[in-house]
Amino acid sequence: MKFVDYSKTVIDSGIWKKKQDMIRTTTIYSVYDRFKETGRFDAFKCDWKEGMPFKPHIFWDSDVAKWIESVAYLTKKKRDKNLETIVDKTVSLIEKNQSPDGYFNIYFTVVQPDKRFTYRSHHELYCAGHLIEAAVAYYSATGKRKFLDLMCRYVDYIEKRFVKEKDTAFTAPGHEEIELALVKLYECTGEKKYLDLSKHFVDIRGTENDIGRQLYDQSHIPVREQTTAEGHAVRAVYLYCAMADVALYTNDKELKDACVRLFSNIVNKRMYITGGIGSSSVGEAFTVDYDLPNLICYTETCASIGLALFAMRMLRLDNSSVYSDIIEKIIYNGFLSSVSLDGKSFFYENPCEIIPYLHYRDVSFADSNRRLYMPKTQRSEVFDCSCCPPNITRFISSIANLIYTADENTLYVHQFMQSKTELVIGGKNITVRQLTKYPEDGKVKIKVTGGNIRLAVRIPGWYEGNDYAAEKGYAYFDVADGETLDFNFRMKVKFVEARPEALFDCGRYAVARGPVIFCSESVDNGPDLRDIRLDCRSAFKYGKNEALGVPELSVKAYRRTVSAETPLYHEKSDRLTSFTARLIPYYAFANRGESEMLIWHLLK
Amino acid sequence: MKFVDYSKTVIDSGIWKKKQDMIRTTTIYSVYDRFKETGRFDAFKCDWKEGMPFKPHIFWDSDVAKWIESVAYLTKKKRDKNLETIVDKTVSLIEKNQSPDGYFNIYFTVVQPDKRFTYRSHHELYCAGHLIEAAVAYYSATGKRKFLDLMCRYVDYIEKRFVKEKDTAFTAPGHEEIELALVKLYECTGEKKYLDLSKHFVDIRGTENDIGRQLYDQSHIPVREQTTAEGHAVRAVYLYCAMADVALYTNDKELKDACVRLFSNIVNKRMYITGGIGSSSVGEAFTVDYDLPNLICYTETCASIGLALFAMRMLRLDNSSVYSDIIEKIIYNGFLSSVSLDGKSFFYENPCEIIPYLHYRDVSFADSNRRLYMPKTQRSEVFDCSCCPPNITRFISSIANLIYTADENTLYVHQFMQSKTELVIGGKNITVRQLTKYPEDGKVKIKVTGGNIRLAVRIPGWYEGNDYAAEKGYAYFDVADGETLDFNFRMKVKFVEARPEALFDCGRYAVARGPVIFCSESVDNGPDLRDIRLDCRSAFKYGKNEALGVPELSVKAYRRTVSAETPLYHEKSDRLTSFTARLIPYYAFANRGESEMLIWHLLK
Repeated sequence: MKFVDYSKTVIDSGIWKKKQDMIRTTTIYSVYDRFKETGRFDAFKCDWKEGMPFKPHIFWDSDVAKWIESVAYLTKKKRDKNLETIVDKTVSLIEKNQSPDGYFNIYFTVVQPDKRFTYRSHHELYCAGHLIEAAVAYYSATGKRKFLDLMCRYVDYIEKRFVKEKDTAFTAPGHEEIELALVKLYECTGEKKYLDLSKHFVDIRGTENDIGRQLYDQSHIPVREQTTAEGHAVRAVYLYCAMADVALYTNDKELKDACVRLFSNIVNKRMYITGGIGSSSVGEAFTVDYDLPNLICYTETCASIGLALFAMRMLRLDNSSVYSDIIEKIIYNGFLSSVSLDGKSFFYENPCEIIPYLHYRDVSFADSNRRLYMPKTQRSEVFDCSCCPPNITRFISSIANLIYTADENTLYVHQFMQSKTELVIGGKNITVRQLTKYPEDGKVKIKVTGGNIRLAVRIPGWYEGNDYAAEKGYAYFDVADGETLDFNFRMKVKFVEARPEALFDCGRYAVARGPVIFCSESVDNGPDLRDIRLDCRSAFKYGKNEALGVPELSVKAYRRTVSAETPLYHEKSDRLTSFTARLIPYYAFANRGESEMLIWHLLK
Repeated sequence: MKFVDYSKTVIDSGIWKKKQDMIRTTTIYSVYDRFKETGRFDAFKCDWKEGMPFKPHIFWDSDVAKWIESVAYLTKKKRDKNLETIVDKTVSLIEKNQSPDGYFNIYFTVVQPDKRFTYRSHHELYCAGHLIEAAVAYYSATGKRKFLDLMCRYVDYIEKRFVKEKDTAFTAPGHEEIELALVKLYECTGEKKYLDLSKHFVDIRGTENDIGRQLYDQSHIPVREQTTAEGHAVRAVYLYCAMADVALYTNDKELKDACVRLFSNIVNKRMYITGGIGSSSVGEAFTVDYDLPNLICYTETCASIGLALFAMRMLRLDNSSVYSDIIEKIIYNGFLSSVSLDGKSFFYENPCEIIPYLHYRDVSFADSNRRLYMPKTQRSEVFDCSCCPPNITRFISSIANLIYTADENTLYVHQFMQSKTELVIGGKNITVRQLTKYPEDGKVKIKVTGGNIRLAVRIPGWYEGNDYAAEKGYAYFDVADGETLDFNFRMKVKFVEARPEALFDCGRYAVARGPVIFCSESVDNGPDLRDIRLDCRSAFKYGKNEALGVPELSVKAYRRTVSAETPLYHEKSDRLTSFTARLIPYYAFANRGESEMLIWHLLK
């Protein structure tokens, strides 16, 4: 089973066309401008000295690397001389400032040059990983080898220190990332030593030979023994990506089983309905099963992206809609919420509920670090820790990667996006055309030309019709050259409940239409959203929110009737006033200023 | 309007008789033993030196002072030679170690002797206040003047420094308490200078002349301008007590109005259904209106006690059941929960919901100070900061104080406790006998002998009958010598809802019978209490929980039927299984080991 190179896919209509255009025309420049202003690009000059502004931070290399990776993905579709010039200049700076032994890291070149590979927590190998990913992508997009070669030299140096000489102060990265990057380098170069190095970092983690083991970075026990997703959520899913990669390429059943267990623990017990993960700001971490508080969730954008990347890798190990359904959930909800409709600002944490005035609850206490943490209510253009914005640009630019995988004879259709793809299956040059407005509606036409192949099409988990026989969530078809398959995954509006153990959602219901989770905002519905009750016997009306240009659901609803004199606590009254509640897709919240926002509603 | 000296009241049956016996036979010794073990009593020797164990803490004086005050209240009813000996020894140590100028404070005598009146935050005047209260109580109970005289000398010194010489590094106490204590000293001695000093501390607070003003200790603005209860909850209500006292004795309308506003803000917007206050562990503080999260409440025992003391003082300013209803709510719920049924262990925070496994949510993060704070699930025998246990002993020992107030011709009956009271009204020696099993049922007989008087009897706010004409919640009766008034406040079981703004309770209902709030525990009802639904059409059965020896309510209820395969998120199913839910009084929770506990239930 292989990924289908996204560059052979053109998304030519619908929501993802719109988002990709937005990245190309707006977001890539917006992120660049903010990174430029904050010194991240100039940091590659490695000329910072104590006393100068813009002291390089330990993860700045990775911020720019993900931006370069995004440019590579855009470039692969359509070259942009301006952007390419910026990348080439940056690569020249890397070349210039790379140490003769191959080492490259801004912070440990200019701030603590004598402390290479000393601090597990200092993102050194994480930065290396993102530079590798960027180099692979840029080579693949442009054919320019320089960046790739520089990184290969760096990786050789890393291998020398961590594997051959074993003279580093830590043994496994504090923030995983290099492991999955090394697999990409292996896929790009065919050099098995890179896969071996990835496997080395995966295997040593949490063993007796690993220095400084802890739950926080998934090194509490060896990775093969792990059964629950623990610690920092982004670190966790990046690690799991690499575990799935290594399991695939080394045919490692034990490692695959660990991945299956960990994925299952996440999506069955530790994931928000939006596909967000990481319930706690404390360590940006997973917590305990079913602990999914909406008001104080963390649900970092990078974690959702990482979970989608992990799920995509799991599809190569086992073609089951268990994985592709989660990808769909993420891309239309907890990921898509991370960028504003204008493409210029971003959520780091994606709130699952907002009550603005609660953010002022602890102001009487001077030490702001001890105040109850709640995610920001509005998107920002840049963050001190700005990992998310360039992760968003690279993910959307390459989102076509999520549509298909293929093996010898079969094309697996995981996601529905209007697009045209060219690929080779069973030696045949096949063109696949998807015609769909998904997720606006559930109609999908898939036309195959160039030969007879087998198609495996995901029947969405949310779809209730039984008109398609499916195996592990996929319907299989032998398709003749020129044939069109016609699907209609009829979308009805549904009330969704969580398991009884998910204590923060008990007695409450989310509204879903197809893969899209809807939410209410007080700008449309007035305050005290937690107390409004949607009428579960009235039909929803599907329309458009004109202010936002996104879908809208409206339905009869009620609020309790109280007066100014009603006491704080009083006997159950059952006095209700009806009104029309208006819900928008979760991904579109917080585009009209600060407002309450709610996913989980009461019903009547 | 005056308080009726509780020592003239004998509670001779019912829940408070039981609790007072428990204090006398068990709790007073249990608290003494813990304080003795932890060096609190020996600290009065003032011989600690660097390197020795049991370094005195800044508030140890107050811990022992509240214990002494408790002994005084017990002694006033029935002398206990052992306890009195301990007090007398402690008083001798105070005498021995009091500075020639009158100053007494353990910490600032042995740890930082050159730092008297330097740190606003160091509880110096708070300790003084509790010593004053103890001295007044002990004099009143035993007639022994020594402690009182020592404290009068200390107060004279305080006045010299803070009022005459004005040479202290702060101008108002960081932790209020001395203000209300000074009023007690005034009431005891008749010396107006003590009232003046109290008024001085009340008036300077938050003004331009106050040094180091902050929200946390209610010094953000002058007290007369305050409209919302802010900052540390115990500090706040102790301040408000003094404000009400000063308003009474100086006939200060502006100050009284501030008290009315602050009381109203608390009970209408910032108080839990248990009478608990302080929504946040961050600063042990009030937060914003309607922010009453149950899982992470703080609701300190001392804060509930303080609110009851404040309410009692408000009754002297305005006889309205607005105040006495809240006292009732506190004593049967958020206060009574603070001590175990065996009288030996205590809650500092009184949880309004418990889900034990959530306490492990943030363990992956090493810095435990940054983890989400939730109140302890089990009572402790002693705390590092052990203000609550001796506050519980003094409050229960003197609980008869809450029953009555009186003016020239009228006896106001605020609480119902089986008891006999002797007092003088309108020059007549009156005996009042209450016969009741309250709150077991709502029948109350009140017999007056010794003359004709006016009785004003609180009609409980929870009572729905309209058989009593009431003015501000009190029914007035001209009672002849020997007459018995007969009340029957019929108790039905009620579902109580909170206002829609109280977001953590929306869609959920508390169960109340008379003044008592009930809760469920998983030891009786299995796990996932948040998801059980009480049947709102079935009748409750009132019985007894045999294991605990407290009342029990049972009612038909439902849980959702799910299987191991039910996904975390799935379409609303409406599949329920019925069972019998068992609820106990909130005050009796956590007496059978660690268990989930819930007040606010779903209904069906």
